[in-house]
Amino acid sequence: MKKAVTFGEIMLRLNPEGYLRFVQADKFEASYAGGEANVAVSLANFGDEAAFVTKVPAHEVGQCAVNALRHYGVDTRYMIRDGARLGLYYVEKGASQRGSKVIYDRAGSAIALAKREDFDWDAILDGADWFHWTGITPALGGELPEIVLDALKKCREKGITVSCDLNYRGKLWSREKACEVMGRLVPYVDVLIANEEDAKDVFGIEAAGTDIMSGKLNKEGYVDVAEQLTKRFGCKAVAITLRGSISASENNWAGMLYTGGKSYLSRNYLIKLVDRVGGGDSFGGGLIHAMMQGMEPQDVIEFAVAASCLKQTIEHDFNQVSEKDVLSLMGGNASGRVQR
Amino acid sequence: MKKAVTFGEIMLRLNPEGYLRFVQADKFEASYAGGEANVAVSLANFGDEAAFVTKVPAHEVGQCAVNALRHYGVDTRYMIRDGARLGLYYVEKGASQRGSKVIYDRAGSAIALAKREDFDWDAILDGADWFHWTGITPALGGELPEIVLDALKKCREKGITVSCDLNYRGKLWSREKACEVMGRLVPYVDVLIANEEDAKDVFGIEAAGTDIMSGKLNKEGYVDVAEQLTKRFGCKAVAITLRGSISASENNWAGMLYTGGKSYLSRNYLIKLVDRVGGGDSFGGGLIHAMMQGMEPQDVIEFAVAASCLKQTIEHDFNQVSEKDVLSLMGGNASGRVQR
Amino acid sequence: MKKAVTFGEIMLRLNPEGYLRFVQADKFEASYAGGEANVAVSLANFGDEAAFVTKVPAHEVGQCAVNALRHYGVDTRYMIRDGARLGLYYVEKGASQRGSKVIYDRAGSAIALAKREDFDWDAILDGADWFHWTGITPALGGELPEIVLDALKKCREKGITVSCDLNYRGKLWSREKACEVMGRLVPYVDVLIANEEDAKDVFGIEAAGTDIMSGKLNKEGYVDVAEQLTKRFGCKAVAITLRGSISASENNWAGMLYTGGKSYLSRNYLIKLVDRVGGGDSFGGGLIHAMMQGMEPQDVIEFAVAASCLKQTIEHDFNQVSEKDVLSLMGGNASGRVQR
Amino acid sequence: MKKAVTFGEIMLRLNPEGYLRFVQADKFEASYAGGEANVAVSLANFGDEAAFVTKVPAHEVGQCAVNALRHYGVDTRYMIRDGARLGLYYVEKGASQRGSKVIYDRAGSAIALAKREDFDWDAILDGADWFHWTGITPALGGELPEIVLDALKKCREKGITVSCDLNYRGKLWSREKACEVMGRLVPYVDVLIANEEDAKDVFGIEAAGTDIMSGKLNKEGYVDVAEQLTKRFGCKAVAITLRGSISASENNWAGMLYTGGKSYLSRNYLIKLVDRVGGGDSFGGGLIHAMMQGMEPQDVIEFAVAASCLKQTIEHDFNQVSEKDVLSLMGGNASGRVQR
Amino acid sequence: MKKAVTFGEIMLRLNPEGYLRFVQADKFEASYAGGEANVAVSLANFGDEAAFVTKVPAHEVGQCAVNALRHYGVDTRYMIRDGARLGLYYVEKGASQRGSKVIYDRAGSAIALAKREDFDWDAILDGADWFHWTGITPALGGELPEIVLDALKKCREKGITVSCDLNYRGKLWSREKACEVMGRLVPYVDVLIANEEDAKDVFGIEAAGTDIMSGKLNKEGYVDVAEQLTKRFGCKAVAITLRGSISASENNWAGMLYTGGKSYLSRNYLIKLVDRVGGGDSFGGGLIHAMMQGMEPQDVIEFAVAASCLKQTIEHDFNQVSEKDVLSLMGGNASGRVQR
Amino acid sequence: MKKAVTFGEIMLRLNPEGYLRFVQADKFEASYAGGEANVAVSLANFGDEAAFVTKVPAHEVGQCAVNALRHYGVDTRYMIRDGARLGLYYVEKGASQRGSKVIYDRAGSAIALAKREDFDWDAILDGADWFHWTGITPALGGELPEIVLDALKKCREKGITVSCDLNYRGKLWSREKACEVMGRLVPYVDVLIANEEDAKDVFGIEAAGTDIMSGKLNKEGYVDVAEQLTKRFGCKAVAITLRGSISASENNWAGMLYTGGKSYLSRNYLIKLVDRVGGGDSFGGGLIHAMMQGMEPQDVIEFAVAASCLKQTIEHDFNQVSEKDVLSLMGGNASGRVQR
Repeated sequence: MKKAVTFGEIMLRLNPEGYLRFVQADKFEASYAGGEANVAVSLANFGDEAAFVTKVPAHEVGQCAVNALRHYGVDTRYMIRDGARLGLYYVEKGASQRGSKVIYDRAGSAIALAKREDFDWDAILDGADWFHWTGITPALGGELPEIVLDALKKCREKGITVSCDLNYRGKLWSREKACEVMGRLVPYVDVLIANEEDAKDVFGIEAAGTDIMSGKLNKEGYVDVAEQLTKRFGCKAVAITLRGSISASENNWAGMLYTGGKSYLSRNYLIKLVDRVGGGDSFGGGLIHAMMQGMEPQDVIEFAVAASCLKQTIEHDFNQVSEKDVLSLMGGNASGRVQR
Repeated sequence: MKKAVTFGEIMLRLNPEGYLRFVQADKFEASYAGGEANVAVSLANFGDEAAFVTKVPAHEVGQCAVNALRHYGVDTRYMIRDGARLGLYYVEKGASQRGSKVIYDRAGSAIALAKREDFDWDAILDGADWFHWTGITPALGGELPEIVLDALKKCREKGITVSCDLNYRGKLWSREKACEVMGRLVPYVDVLIANEEDAKDVFGIEAAGTDIMSGKLNKEGYVDVAEQLTKRFGCKAVAITLRGSISASENNWAGMLYTGGKSYLSRNYLIKLVDRVGGGDSFGGGLIHAMMQGMEPQDVIEFAVAASCLKQTIEHDFNQVSEKDVLSLMGGNASGRVQR
Repeated sequence: MKKAVTFGEIMLRLNPEGYLRFVQADKFEASYAGGEANVAVSLANFGDEAAFVTKVPAHEVGQCAVNALRHYGVDTRYMIRDGARLGLYYVEKGASQRGSKVIYDRAGSAIALAKREDFDWDAILDGADWFHWTGITPALGGELPEIVLDALKKCREKGITVSCDLNYRGKLWSREKACEVMGRLVPYVDVLIANEEDAKDVFGIEAAGTDIMSGKLNKEGYVDVAEQLTKRFGCKAVAITLRGSISASENNWAGMLYTGGKSYLSRNYLIKLVDRVGGGDSFGGGLIHAMMQGMEPQDVIEFAVAASCLKQTIEHDFNQVSEKDVLSLMGGNASGRVQR
Repeated sequence: MKKAVTFGEIMLRLNPEGYLRFVQADKFEASYAGGEANVAVSLANFGDEAAFVTKVPAHEVGQCAVNALRHYGVDTRYMIRDGARLGLYYVEKGASQRGSKVIYDRAGSAIALAKREDFDWDAILDGADWFHWTGITPALGGELPEIVLDALKKCREKGITVSCDLNYRGKLWSREKACEVMGRLVPYVDVLIANEEDAKDVFGIEAAGTDIMSGKLNKEGYVDVAEQLTKRFGCKAVAITLRGSISASENNWAGMLYTGGKSYLSRNYLIKLVDRVGGGDSFGGGLIHAMMQGMEPQDVIEFAVAASCLKQTIEHDFNQVSEKDVLSLMGGNASGRVQR
Repeated sequence: MKKAVTFGEIMLRLNPEGYLRFVQADKFEASYAGGEANVAVSLANFGDEAAFVTKVPAHEVGQCAVNALRHYGVDTRYMIRDGARLGLYYVEKGASQRGSKVIYDRAGSAIALAKREDFDWDAILDGADWFHWTGITPALGGELPEIVLDALKKCREKGITVSCDLNYRGKLWSREKACEVMGRLVPYVDVLIANEEDAKDVFGIEAAGTDIMSGKLNKEGYVDVAEQLTKRFGCKAVAITLRGSISASENNWAGMLYTGGKSYLSRNYLIKLVDRVGGGDSFGGGLIHAMMQGMEPQDVIEFAVAASCLKQTIEHDFNQVSEKDVLSLMGGNASGRVQR
Repeated sequence: MKKAVTFGEIMLRLNPEGYLRFVQADKFEASYAGGEANVAVSLANFGDEAAFVTKVPAHEVGQCAVNALRHYGVDTRYMIRDGARLGLYYVEKGASQRGSKVIYDRAGSAIALAKREDFDWDAILDGADWFHWTGITPALGGELPEIVLDALKKCREKGITVSCDLNYRGKLWSREKACEVMGRLVPYVDVLIANEEDAKDVFGIEAAGTDIMSGKLNKEGYVDVAEQLTKRFGCKAVAITLRGSISASENNWAGMLYTGGKSYLSRNYLIKLVDRVGGGDSFGGGLIHAMMQGMEPQDVIEFAVAASCLKQTIEHDFNQVSEKDVLSLMGGNASGRVQR
């Protein structure tokens, strides 16, 4: 069994029930989520050993975040219990022409104020095969860019494979700042993950001829983006998610993996969305699992895309699917028949 | 800031949760709604001053109706508190081939039994730029046709623009009665709003070649209907909603504005319906706001249709959207991407 | 008014709310269902006299099953109250590419352990016009194959029409066992009902060129299947449901009736699914009602398919529709417009 | 098995969840209830044959009322389906010093507008042993006083025992009107049921020294009231409920039966209230069952009080208890231990 | 009609349903509350004009806070829309021996970061009769002590009565800091409100012989505390709430008013608690209303205590009672009988 | 950190919401519980290492049971995944005079059909300090008595302390059978736990003068019972829970520990019950934790009783309290004041 460690923020997610708008809600569904925590849960559900590293307050709401991960078997022993508030975000689910809305309230969280000495990376990474982080973590500011760097250097020292999802968040930092910080961190990354916009937002690397609003994809253009990323940072693989937003209710979904100088395009899924938040993270989770299993490149991208297709039919951020569920969809069983 | 006054009935709306049928429900979602109240909320949400005039019982359920409007900033000072019951209606949401059902229980309500002396129109309309009513209000009977007439005459006296949604309800009055009463009231109307069937039901004015059941629209035929209405009643503008019912889950939605001898057709939206009840009212709300803002005719109809498209992706009757939400959709942003 | 008797198991059905997966649920919706009970409710809702025969424990949860049927007017006087547990099953609703899951927990139920002497078929079938059972009942084992045989012989004696839905369940018995037992019981059946797979699973009778996963139907091939079944067992009519699974959210749905040497194909419905469990049973219910009403063959199959189309837009197993609802859809009213 | 027929109104009951006030509710629990319908359900749950007679609209909400009674096995064949609206009432549950509130909205209901010719009492009462009505029914006005009289005369003709719960409702009629109408009807009554205030409100018959607000009871005074009622109307038995309201959360509860010139006082229960609405009706239900079973007077009043004590620990109006549950409490098992 | 202005923070309140602990919740009830906002709602529900002044973010969750107050008719025109996050707090309801828990997450909120120039007190206080604030507001830090001082000086200038609830929060500031800041602000206060502990926590003023844990009260000792407060700060009146915590389910509740050199003790209520959070604020609301109405001192304290007794039988922070409800309880109607 | 291992069954627990009776429920709250699993969760929440051993099906509902324990940090690695159904039980919460009801449906569960070779006790008990089981486990029949014996012998071999809760269940086995089997197993037990009835039910050992229904306790009589148990089986300690059932809403609760020839009686708590199911198990959990911490006998019994008092104010079986929560109550803080 392979062991992966992920590092980042876990937040309380609050969303109105069903399709209610914020102003209609007198109740919020409460779950716990975050880019890297979502990946840890994906991996645990696939049967991998997965640990999540962060800092959360010692109070009961912090405990809820710990429990939410233990529920799925994630190793939470390095979730440090101290300090400030638990970050949170509000999600309102869109439908048809009305897009979903996300409001973040994460400033001043325990992890955002964490210190380098909080994390003993030598112990944390002991026995790990893989380390995963996203661009959100250094974007939280404070000492986090340095903390990530500490972890990355330790990974290099220990020969641990590193993946990173660029995940640019304009509300957290400027493109200039992101480019500067990520420019220092990405050289340590083996597997780089991005959506259609991240490479441009962070590094100004662009695929020609793409119109996100149109619902159509320029899949070929992304090969060029992946090639540029590979060249600039020396990554072994670049994976890009390809989302075609038809409406808030229906999306096309595919992915592309570029590795060894070749590109591998997945099949496309037309998804009737249940909850698309966390879709990108579940792609990362699928990708890491497939790579840790040593699958062939085409299977890797098919597994990642099938896994994240399924996530988008599931409520809340976590991807509640087994490896078997994903393999079945990869194998062509997309008709949604009842399993008795 | 422009000020609009709307007049009519507000009811308790009871609907089973989700797609449950009436006979499956042991719980009803409770909201408060009515054609003209819905318009008032639309306007308040767009940032206009909006007052709603009616009569509701002095008891707690009447108070709930007042609160529901205050919630969105509607001026409720002329909601008279006295008299009989609060009308109500039951809604069962359809899906796919199963249509929605509405059961009204509004006879004997406080507003249906209201008296002319209950309303001091001079005070109520003080400072108003716009007055809106629908064909449902006189259809409630009693003194309401005369009360509406009182208001309309006062509007003419004060130079207030008047809009009316024909909104024919066969359960409330016969076509003959409607034709007679509305024939006396519509001459005071500047802006007339109707759906595909109202003009025929109330005044026998018909668009050739339309089959509502077919899901297809004969948009051109409606220009002819609008022209006839304009001629007969001297309206300055006629606006018609164009609904193509594919199923209880999917509708086409567009609108046409006829003014100054020209017709303006909006773009069409294919809507995955969340709740279509109140769709027509939100069209009226969008139209009035756009006109009060002095938009160009094409923008007026685009705003009205985009506003009411969004409403149909929202639960319950009220249109919970801001002017910015509507302008964004009008501007072509219909892909439903997440706004972070 | 015609009277039908159905015989089989009624279970507690537990499903998470909405699209939640089992592992996300801390609440289950509780309803009561079973192939033959579902048919009884369909018939009662159509206005027929319907009795359901089974055995359930004397405790409160058994009482809930009785009440669930009385709620719709089903005659429950022959639901024997004694013995072991109430069987149950768990349902998780799928969406898009994620299929629904059903987990049965029915071993050792009161009905599975019932004895021949529990049922006085002479009294039970008194005054009945129709008797319905499914292949699930003998599959439960114990004395049930003999109990069904007792009932069938009594039907023949009394001249009661018998229908059977093959309903093969691989978790309950092997194909060999099913073929042997059903081979002894089906000769007593007048009207045989099956889905696309049952005839093959139970009797090895197959329609060439069908791929259930493809979402397309080979309607013609099923005529051949029906013909073979008719010949082998001497049935008067064979009805087959034709499901095209596009995804867990959308299905094509049609049916075929073979009787008097001719085949009658229904129109096809593209259904946006609310809950497809119980769809086949509601087809049986519609078919029996239409036949008891003496409809023409084409109307029989149209009624059965329209009824079961509507069922799939309704939550839980029971078909909550009136004869009027079905006739309206049969008559072409599939646009889902609001009925006020 | 004894058969009882009850006659009156059944309404939709709407209450906010838990202890929410009306103005806080965006959801109402929906159940169906009414003084005489509640008695019918009590009896059916005790194992008696019970029929309920009324008139409800033909629409789906009327159907819900029918189903709610069928659920418990009440014979609904004489629930006439036609006419106006279903009456309804709103309930807000109090706590501690805050009393519960009930708002009625029952004017113009189908039953209130019913006609004498709607009811074929000869058929309805066929085979009945007992007929029960309450003072609410004639209070609804229209032809109801005459309809009740028709039924009462038929009972006398057929030798059916008649019980009546005085149940004075000041919102429905004045004391003068009540006294006049009830004065004509009560002479047909064998068993008269009342609470502490009814006899005074309707007939001006009063027990000295009682202060309802004090939470203390003057049990002896009620014997005198019963005696007077017996003398004036020739009843065979008079039963009075004795409620001591400590707060909206705790009540004392007892009862007194006066028959054959003697009085029988029950034990007292200190109840932690779950829902006290329907408490009086469940007392009537218990009383009728005990009398139909031929219990001794002391047992009759103990059964009635124990039954209605249990009701007040149960949500909504219906008394969901078996005869066994009541006998167990009567037998002294009030410690509320878990039954496994 | 009197007009009162209150100033402070409004937060999102999140609590698990019923008696669930935080770690059991996958849903939070969402309401909006804060010490001074709660007072504004109390007053609006009593029929007074009430305005609430604060600063909340421009996003949808900030809008929810505005709507929550508009719902009850509070004037929200001076709720400034800009800046940082909306503060929030988590509440877990206790029962019996298990106490309730409150976790605050309010650092960095829009109001905590507000600037003196955000508030035009001359305009805000125009036409006001009363100004209310609590010790929580300056405790939030930043410029708030100065902003409160600005408001207080303007009140003195305009002759507006000022009330203050000491409301010491040890998590927000030290006793030393509180003493220093409040020592500068309280001299502007006419009516000072406190609970049993505040005077000691803030100013070191203590009532001898009180043990909060014991459930018993030393009412006399509080007169001495009130006298000391009056002397030190020159208040016209001091009101103290007297809570006797028997358990998390039952409290004794009373109050004492000291004014004109005399003390007025209220009657005591034994409350079965529904939700005690906001109890103190509703005492303040009752007190202010009674004083604005010009009631006699004994009536003032009885009104305040009765109002806040009722609040503790109601869910969430806001006191959902009318003046009539309070007067009825004051008048001795505490038996909780059903009002029909 | 001490490590405890518990062994037994974990079931799905289904209960209607709030105080609804089974026949009123259309929803069940779903949690997972069992006597020994409850103890494991108690210990994990106190900060101990706790492992739970059982066998559950490989399907998703079995997975839910695993997750429910992982949620609280219980080590689930020895929950074997295979075999038959997950047992379940239905709980209906009583109130006042109406007792709670429990209906078990556990026959044929995976654990009931488990085999001796399923459990490698040498590995399972590696590093354990404590082993806990209850009388329910051997009562499930099959090979379970032998499996328990295997474990007990291994404990003796490894010097692991053993505790057992007698927990007699009359529905599972007769007193004779219980006496015979438990007579063979209890000699391996160091710490014996029982309620007021178990010793008599299983071994015929009785405390004179106790009437469970009376709500009063004969605490002294239990010392004699404990002495007899100690003598017969050579236990080091016997702990007995003392419940006084006043009603389904209020219970007295205390406990007695007999060890070293002395008895230690705890203080008594009058509990307003939220959910008493699992109360006995939480007593066991508290006792084991206190003993593993090496507390003095009086503190051991106070800790166990305070812990289980708190449990009964919490929904569902698991005791969601920390060591700190219990110590606070033990320290006398029972007033239920809000902790901010």
